[in-house]
Amino acid sequence: MAETKENSIRDRSVEKLSDRINAAVGNEKADLVLKGGYVVDVFNQKIISGADVAICGSYIVGIGRYSGKEEIDVSGKYIIPGLIDSHVHIESSFLIPSEYAKAVVMHGVTTIIADPHEIANVCGVDGMDYMLEDGEKSLINIQYMVPSCVPATEFDHSGAVITKEDIEELLKRKNVVGLGEMMNYPGVISCDDDVINKLSVTDFVDGHSPTLGGRGLCAYINGGVMTDHECISAKEAREKVSMGMNVLIREGTGSKNLEELIRAVTANNSSSFAFCTDDKDIDEILRDGTIRNCVRKAISHGLRPQLAIKLATINAARIYGQKKRGAIAPAYYADIVVADSLKLDNIEMVFCEGKLAFDKRYLSGTDDQAVSDKSDMSADEIEEINMKSVIARDTGKTDTSRVTDTVHLNGIITPDDLHVEFDPDKPVIHLKEGSLITEPIYLADPTGLVMLANIERHHNTGFIGKAFAMGLDIRGGAVAQSIGHDSHNITVIGDNTEDMVLAVNALGKSGGIAVVKDGKVIEFMPLPIGGIMTDLPALEADAQFDKIREAIELIGPGEKDSNSILMVLSFSSLLVIPHIKLGDRGLFDVDNNRYL
Amino acid sequence: MAETKENSIRDRSVEKLSDRINAAVGNEKADLVLKGGYVVDVFNQKIISGADVAICGSYIVGIGRYSGKEEIDVSGKYIIPGLIDSHVHIESSFLIPSEYAKAVVMHGVTTIIADPHEIANVCGVDGMDYMLEDGEKSLINIQYMVPSCVPATEFDHSGAVITKEDIEELLKRKNVVGLGEMMNYPGVISCDDDVINKLSVTDFVDGHSPTLGGRGLCAYINGGVMTDHECISAKEAREKVSMGMNVLIREGTGSKNLEELIRAVTANNSSSFAFCTDDKDIDEILRDGTIRNCVRKAISHGLRPQLAIKLATINAARIYGQKKRGAIAPAYYADIVVADSLKLDNIEMVFCEGKLAFDKRYLSGTDDQAVSDKSDMSADEIEEINMKSVIARDTGKTDTSRVTDTVHLNGIITPDDLHVEFDPDKPVIHLKEGSLITEPIYLADPTGLVMLANIERHHNTGFIGKAFAMGLDIRGGAVAQSIGHDSHNITVIGDNTEDMVLAVNALGKSGGIAVVKDGKVIEFMPLPIGGIMTDLPALEADAQFDKIREAIELIGPGEKDSNSILMVLSFSSLLVIPHIKLGDRGLFDVDNNRYL
Repeated sequence: MAETKENSIRDRSVEKLSDRINAAVGNEKADLVLKGGYVVDVFNQKIISGADVAICGSYIVGIGRYSGKEEIDVSGKYIIPGLIDSHVHIESSFLIPSEYAKAVVMHGVTTIIADPHEIANVCGVDGMDYMLEDGEKSLINIQYMVPSCVPATEFDHSGAVITKEDIEELLKRKNVVGLGEMMNYPGVISCDDDVINKLSVTDFVDGHSPTLGGRGLCAYINGGVMTDHECISAKEAREKVSMGMNVLIREGTGSKNLEELIRAVTANNSSSFAFCTDDKDIDEILRDGTIRNCVRKAISHGLRPQLAIKLATINAARIYGQKKRGAIAPAYYADIVVADSLKLDNIEMVFCEGKLAFDKRYLSGTDDQAVSDKSDMSADEIEEINMKSVIARDTGKTDTSRVTDTVHLNGIITPDDLHVEFDPDKPVIHLKEGSLITEPIYLADPTGLVMLANIERHHNTGFIGKAFAMGLDIRGGAVAQSIGHDSHNITVIGDNTEDMVLAVNALGKSGGIAVVKDGKVIEFMPLPIGGIMTDLPALEADAQFDKIREAIELIGPGEKDSNSILMVLSFSSLLVIPHIKLGDRGLFDVDNNRYL
Repeated sequence: MAETKENSIRDRSVEKLSDRINAAVGNEKADLVLKGGYVVDVFNQKIISGADVAICGSYIVGIGRYSGKEEIDVSGKYIIPGLIDSHVHIESSFLIPSEYAKAVVMHGVTTIIADPHEIANVCGVDGMDYMLEDGEKSLINIQYMVPSCVPATEFDHSGAVITKEDIEELLKRKNVVGLGEMMNYPGVISCDDDVINKLSVTDFVDGHSPTLGGRGLCAYINGGVMTDHECISAKEAREKVSMGMNVLIREGTGSKNLEELIRAVTANNSSSFAFCTDDKDIDEILRDGTIRNCVRKAISHGLRPQLAIKLATINAARIYGQKKRGAIAPAYYADIVVADSLKLDNIEMVFCEGKLAFDKRYLSGTDDQAVSDKSDMSADEIEEINMKSVIARDTGKTDTSRVTDTVHLNGIITPDDLHVEFDPDKPVIHLKEGSLITEPIYLADPTGLVMLANIERHHNTGFIGKAFAMGLDIRGGAVAQSIGHDSHNITVIGDNTEDMVLAVNALGKSGGIAVVKDGKVIEFMPLPIGGIMTDLPALEADAQFDKIREAIELIGPGEKDSNSILMVLSFSSLLVIPHIKLGDRGLFDVDNNRYL
C-alpha cells in the first residue's frame, strides 16, 4: 500500500529481462540454483517439496527443475523468504544500520522498515541522511519512514526539528516509504495545525495509538494512518484491523505483545498482520534474532507455521509496498533463508538479493550437525560463529562528520550545576524498576534519595532540569548517558553531585554511557554517532554494553537488573508517559501537560 | 501492487483532512450517515451489526455511532463495499464507458479495470484517449491498462499501432494502472524483441496465458506479469497462484470459468483471487450484472459469502493498487452498495465516492417489497426500473471526432470484389457454433457452403480475404459487421455475393452490424465509435442488438443461436486461435503461423 521509489524491481533493461527469461525457460543456465529443497509457497501457504530455485542476478527466476552455473544442494532443508521487520528503531540496538544488518541477517532478516526517530531528534535531516547512506551500504534492504514527531512534544528541546517541508523533501528520497509513527495521536484527533500539516503531505503514515478505539480511532485513521504497533490486547487488534489498519505484532525488549496478539490472527484476517520489534537490545538480537524470534514464538503459541512465515514475509512486504519481496517466486528478489524447519531452526544460509550474506556451512562442520544445535556451546560462542558466518561486503565507511561530536555543553559541568536544594513542597520522582511510569511523591527529608538531572546538550543553552528521585537505589556513584527519550539530552542519576559531574563530563563531545564509582569513571561506552550509537561491530558493542551493565551493578541495588536501570533512566525524560518526568527545564507534570 | 497516479486518496488538503477528522471524532456532523446497517468488514471477514457509516465528501470517515446532516436508515440491510471488475473490455458491451458505467453501477460495480484493446486496434492512442476522457465522465471509477498487443500479431492489419514509446507515454496518464494483457506469451518466452521492449517499461503487466505452466510460466512471470484471467482449471489456478500470480476468476459471456476455479480458493490463498468478466454482452450485463453475478455464483458454489465479497472488493483493489477502495472503513472512498444480503439480493442504493449513483427507493414502492423481487415483472421491466434508478450526472458528451468515421473502404464494394472461385484444393473453413476453434476441410464442390470475407477497412488498402465456409448455414442473406478480432476489419458472411455487398456497404463510414435478407437491409445497428461501439444508452443499445439477433434468425439456421453466429463471425479473423482463420490477406494457417 505504501509507495516508494524503491518499490519497483530495479533492472528491467531489455538485456537483463531477456537473461532472466532465458534462464527461467531453461535455455540458459541460471547463475545459481538451490537444489531440491522444501520451498515455502506463501501464496497458497503450502510447501513445494523437492523443487529447485533458480536465481539470476538479484532475482529468483524459476521454481521447478533447473541447472545452474553454481548449484547448492539444499535437500531436506526449507527455502523460506527472507524475514521482514516491519517497524524498528535501529538506534535502540546502539548499532549503526550496516552493523545492525549483520546482527539480524544471521537470524534470517533481509528487509527492515526503520524509523530513525532517535537520531533525527539529535541531528535532524542530517541524521536521516546518515541512516539512509549507511543503510544503502548494508547487507539487507533497509527502508525508512520519515520521523513525524521531531521534537516529540512542544516541551521537548531536541537537537533538531523536522518540519513539514523537511518531510516533503525526505519523502522523495530513495528507500523512503512514508511518514513515521505519528505518536501525537491526540494532536491528530484534535486537528493540531502542525500535525495536520505534516499528515497532509502523504497518505502512508505509521501509527502509534495505544488503546485507541471507537471514534477516536476512526479520526486517527482519517489522517492516513495505516499501521499500529502498540496494540496490547487481541480485542484492540481486531478492532484496528476491522477499521482497515495493519497491526504490527510487536515483540521487542521492553514490550512483548505477541502471545496476546497472536490470538487475534485467523485464516480470514491474517493479511492485516505482520511482526515487528520496535526496540530491541543488542544482546537479545544476537541471541534470539528479531523476527525469527517472532516466528518461533507464534508457532509455539499455536499459529500454523506457514501462517507465521506469511506474517513475517509477504504480509510485511505488502503493507510497506515492498514489491517483489517476501516470497519465493519468479521475478521476486532472491531474499532467501535456508533453514532446517519452518520454525527457523538452524539457519544455514541467507541470501540477500541473490548474494550469500550468511553461510554457516563451512563453520558448522558436517551438513547434518549444525553448530547452533550443539548443546555444549555457550551463547557467546554460538553468536561468534554466527557472526563469522556473515559475509560482509566492503562498502566503505559512511561519512559520520554530520552526526558526531553532538554533545554541546556550556563548558564543563560542575557540582554546583547539579546541586539541588531539597524542598518538601516539591515532588520527588518515584521511579519504578521495569516500568516507564513514574509517580510524584512528597517527602519530609531527602534521606536515601538519589538525584536526577536532565542536561540540555544540543545547543549550549545551559538548561539543566534537576530533581530528587527514589526507586533506583544507586550508592556511591552515578550513571550518565547522552540518551534520554526523545530529545536525547543527557540523563544522569547518582547519589552525589561529584560522581554525577564526573560521569557527565566523561561523555565528552561524542557522548555515550559512563559509570562512576567512588570518584572514578569505572566504565565508559562511547556512542559517537549522535551520542546514541556506537560505530563498533555488534559483538564488540554487545561486550562493551555488558561491561556497562556489570559496572552499574557495582553501584546499583544488588540483585536488580542493571539493564532496567538504564531503561528507566532513558525514559525519565519522556514527557508523554505518566505521571511526572524530568526535562531540561525541570519537573514536568505529564497529566497536566506542563512544566511545574 | 500496481501503482497509478490515481492511487492516492485525492484531497489531503489541511482543510479537508480537518473536516474529515472532526466528523470522525463526532465534533461535526458528517455529510451523510447510513444508519444501523450490517457493515461488511472485509479485513476480518465479519459483519458489524447495527453500525452507522459516516461519510464526508468522497470518503467514509467513521463506523460506529454517528449523526449526519443527512441520514438514511439502512437497518436490516447490508453495507457492502462497491464491487470491482478486475479485467474487462468495455467494447464487448457495445457501450461507451460512461454508458457502460450506468449499466454496471445498478448491479453494484463502482470500479473497473478496463483494457481498451479493441478501440486501440482501430484508433490507437486516439482510442485510448477517448476511453480515458469518457471514463472520467462516468459515474464509477474507471482505471485502464494500456493495450500491449496492438496489432495483435504481425499478420494483423489493424487501424493503428501502439508502440513501446506510446506505451511509455500512456503509462504516465491519470487513471492508467499498467500494461494490458500480454497475449503474446510465446513472444515473452522466446524473448521477442518487440515484446521485451514493451515489457521493459513497467513492472505491472496483465497476463493472458491459457494453460501455461512449469518453466514457461516462470519465464512469462519474469516479464512482469502479475495476473492471469485465462485459467480454466483449479489446478492451473493453484500453480499460477503458487508462482505469485493473481488469478482473476472470469465469468463472462463466452468464457465461464467460475464454477471450476472457485474450487481453488481457500481461506489460506484467497488474497490471490479476484473476479472479472473479460467480455460480456449487454443483455447479460443488464439482466445479471457483472461482478454481482460472480459473487452470487461463487456463493451458490459454496464459497463463504464474506469471502466472495472479499474477492469482489478489497482483493481486486489491492491487486490493482486501488488505494482506499474495496472496504467499508475510515479514509476509504465511499464506494458503497446497500443490499438485502451478502448475495447482493435487491441492491437498493449504490454510492460512488460518496454520491448516490443508484437509488431504487423511490421506484420500488415500499421499503420491504423490492421491485426486482416482484415475480410478475418481466426482465425488461426490471431492467428499465433499474436504469431509471441510476442517478446520471450531466458531465457533457465526450468529443468523438477522433474515433468516428473509421470505416475507410476503397470505394464501395461490388459483388466481383467478394466473388471467390471454388477450388477443391483449397481448404474450406469449418466454423463451429459456440466455439472459436475452426477446422480446415477439403470438399469436392461448393454445394451448400457459405462465403466468408474479411475486408481491410482502416487504410483503403483494398485487401480482401475470401473463403468458403461451412457450419453456419445462412440462407438467402448476409451479415456484415465492422467487428472482427483483433484488427476489427469488416467480417461478412452470406450465401450470395449480392447480399454480402449490400450488407457491407450498409455499414457506411461509421460501421456497425447489418443484416440483409433477399436483397434488402432488414436491420442495421450503427456502431459509430470505432465501428465497434454505439453512442446509445444501454437499454436502447440492448433493444437494437435484440433486433439484430432477431433479424439474423430470419436468415439463420432455424433453432440456432443468432448470438453465437455473431460471435463466430467476430472471431473468424482472430489469427491466434486454431486452426484456420481468415485475414484480410486470405486464409491463415494458425498452426503454422502463416498465410496460406
